[in-house]
Amino acid sequence: MRIRITNVLLMPGVTNEAHIPFIPDAEVLVDGSRIAYAGPKAGAPAFEADEVIDGYGMLAMPGLCNMHTHTPMTLLRSIGSDLTLDRWLNEAIFPVEKHLTDEAVRAGSDLGIMEMLRFGTTSFNDMYMHMDMEAEAVRDSGMRALLGHGVVDFDESCADLAPNIALIEKWNHAADDRIRISLAPHSEGATTEKVLLKIREAAETYHVPIHIHVSETRLDYDGSLNRRGLTPPQYLEKLGLTAHPVLAAHCVWMTDEDIELFARRGVTVLHNPMSNLKLASGIAPIAKMLKAGCRITLGTDGVASNNNLNLWEEIKLMPMLQKGNTLDPTVVSPAQTIAAATSAGAKAMGYEDLGQLKPGYLADLILLDLSGAHMCPCNDLESNLVYSAQGSDVALTMVNGKVLYRNGVYTTLVPRLVLERARKQAGSLLERAAQAAK
Amino acid sequence: MRIRITNVLLMPGVTNEAHIPFIPDAEVLVDGSRIAYAGPKAGAPAFEADEVIDGYGMLAMPGLCNMHTHTPMTLLRSIGSDLTLDRWLNEAIFPVEKHLTDEAVRAGSDLGIMEMLRFGTTSFNDMYMHMDMEAEAVRDSGMRALLGHGVVDFDESCADLAPNIALIEKWNHAADDRIRISLAPHSEGATTEKVLLKIREAAETYHVPIHIHVSETRLDYDGSLNRRGLTPPQYLEKLGLTAHPVLAAHCVWMTDEDIELFARRGVTVLHNPMSNLKLASGIAPIAKMLKAGCRITLGTDGVASNNNLNLWEEIKLMPMLQKGNTLDPTVVSPAQTIAAATSAGAKAMGYEDLGQLKPGYLADLILLDLSGAHMCPCNDLESNLVYSAQGSDVALTMVNGKVLYRNGVYTTLVPRLVLERARKQAGSLLERAAQAAK
Repeated sequence: MRIRITNVLLMPGVTNEAHIPFIPDAEVLVDGSRIAYAGPKAGAPAFEADEVIDGYGMLAMPGLCNMHTHTPMTLLRSIGSDLTLDRWLNEAIFPVEKHLTDEAVRAGSDLGIMEMLRFGTTSFNDMYMHMDMEAEAVRDSGMRALLGHGVVDFDESCADLAPNIALIEKWNHAADDRIRISLAPHSEGATTEKVLLKIREAAETYHVPIHIHVSETRLDYDGSLNRRGLTPPQYLEKLGLTAHPVLAAHCVWMTDEDIELFARRGVTVLHNPMSNLKLASGIAPIAKMLKAGCRITLGTDGVASNNNLNLWEEIKLMPMLQKGNTLDPTVVSPAQTIAAATSAGAKAMGYEDLGQLKPGYLADLILLDLSGAHMCPCNDLESNLVYSAQGSDVALTMVNGKVLYRNGVYTTLVPRLVLERARKQAGSLLERAAQAAK
Repeated sequence: MRIRITNVLLMPGVTNEAHIPFIPDAEVLVDGSRIAYAGPKAGAPAFEADEVIDGYGMLAMPGLCNMHTHTPMTLLRSIGSDLTLDRWLNEAIFPVEKHLTDEAVRAGSDLGIMEMLRFGTTSFNDMYMHMDMEAEAVRDSGMRALLGHGVVDFDESCADLAPNIALIEKWNHAADDRIRISLAPHSEGATTEKVLLKIREAAETYHVPIHIHVSETRLDYDGSLNRRGLTPPQYLEKLGLTAHPVLAAHCVWMTDEDIELFARRGVTVLHNPMSNLKLASGIAPIAKMLKAGCRITLGTDGVASNNNLNLWEEIKLMPMLQKGNTLDPTVVSPAQTIAAATSAGAKAMGYEDLGQLKPGYLADLILLDLSGAHMCPCNDLESNLVYSAQGSDVALTMVNGKVLYRNGVYTTLVPRLVLERARKQAGSLLERAAQAAK
């Protein structure tokens, strides 16, 4: 399929921290799964298109990367709100997750993918269970994802990593390379040293990244100090994990040494500002991490601690929270924010040719409708994009050169059926959990 | 006009801090400007309707009150982003505001009202200049507003309050009582004692509330201590202003004594969490104020420090920020949040019959479409409403019994013309400012 998007305002991608570039009256040419051209209309090459999309009044930009989520948890949306983290996990989340089935995970995955596509997310990084089901949902929907089977291992019972290796062998680079696999130890506190060393070994053997929760809460930080005499980042360094690509979710409780270590090692920080507020974990020192040269990306976390998958909310919240918390309005630029939501995430997922609209790059892009009252007037497009735009402004979402969402219409999902199945599976999941609690 | 909204999920209004009530399969009957009935369909009285609105799959709830904004500043959207407050005011905002005209204020007011209606705001509390123009915009659009002419008075030159009194005499209770007028001294720092005493007198004479910025920044707080030996709340108390209804915007830098004073005096706090982050003013101690019994309401502030008028963003941010900042996820309930955005605001505007959907109350309401993927499943409607909903879910906005917005269509505004005029007026305003700067 060859698609021409014409008469569009183009944001080809963020390449520095100071400014977001825009090109008016541009054209994007998509040939199969890749960008053939993205630039001024006047300079576009001859191109026989199967479909022409009029982008008048819209912004074409790289699709968003939701870099930390647990997609099937959409079925648990709004469960356990306003509880302490301990009660949220032990009374609300864990008792239900014990009763997950393949069917529930498939239904939750489809629902999450449907929501992400609507709000302009074109790829996501996930850690959960029943991952064959989630991989099938990604394959069938046309989405792009980095998937990891979560390893929770208090007693070395998971130390053979069998489900992780099986997932890699079956799915890594599958579905036209839209699916990639990570190794996903839950956290310092929820895994044994033995399993982390096995994971380091597997990361080396299979060349896959490691996705792990790091210093999400004060308790994580203090616990690691008590157990190991080391902060979680220091512990990962000691075990040699940081010699491999590490995607570290949260990083709320970080010492200056932790930040310096992650910057030096090129660890990618997966920042989830909304979830960190909702679970009262705190406010990650993102302004400081950016200054130190850390790689910052953005995520929603699972919907049970958010409670949606609209990455535009995180885009606005990331700079706002840093300004308010440091009492310095100049920290965290729009360019740094959009980079975190697009190019930095794409790179952390292991793609060298994703996250920007450049010839040869994978065609993951969105069209943003700029015509709303809330985007008028356009005195400063960068500011409007980061501080005024709504997830609902997304008019079109394309992954791998294929339009998956456009003006309320999905091409690979049937919304009525996705919603119906999700409601049904959520209902029976909660019922099983309630029965078991009796 | 008699309207029946049927087959709807009803949220009649928040009356306690613990829970938001919901009534399934309900009906709302609107007779002229007032609610005739709101309750179970089964109990609805006989009612001859001119129009029937099918509310299937939607939530009918009180319209939102945006309790602190400067609506005409929509023309300055995104100007001066990411600057320190001092530079933002002195380099970006003041030099432009000097060149405001009646035409600009009218254009900005229409644009702001258009945006607010789209996101479900049915009334707002404003302080600005050229207020005749804003009042005309409110009159013509069908909106409801409390309007105040801002008094900035460093040298007692405004001490006769002539524009304020003229505004009261011309507009208070005008347009079917949709327009009410306040007295709006800017702040402790930007007004003289003489003018504040005159304002107290006028508040008594005309029975209108006082709208004022209080302790927005650390500088406001320190400045007041230096100038008066009193915090801004103590100074208002000393001058006797707190004996009248006071609407105090921001209240970020508050001592425990200030909080106790405002609770005891029934001062209404106008909380603007997004603006306070963006301008790096800080995080208002809302959880503490709620505990102390303060009246809390929500606002967006002007769009130049937000940068939109979508109150749903403040609805999500208010509880989130308090949880994250206090490290206690149990503070600020969904009910407290929705009360702040609806009933508490209506009351603070001086209406005893607004902010809930009850027989005899004014018919300011919205329909919220619950069918989006981001609202599914509905395990907890209170949580979905506060943490998952989007401003774009608003399907219908009614003020004073009249539908002003429905599924993208406005009944009193012509969007194309509003946007065109706003762009034009913003352009010439900025050009005048640039010319003058040369």
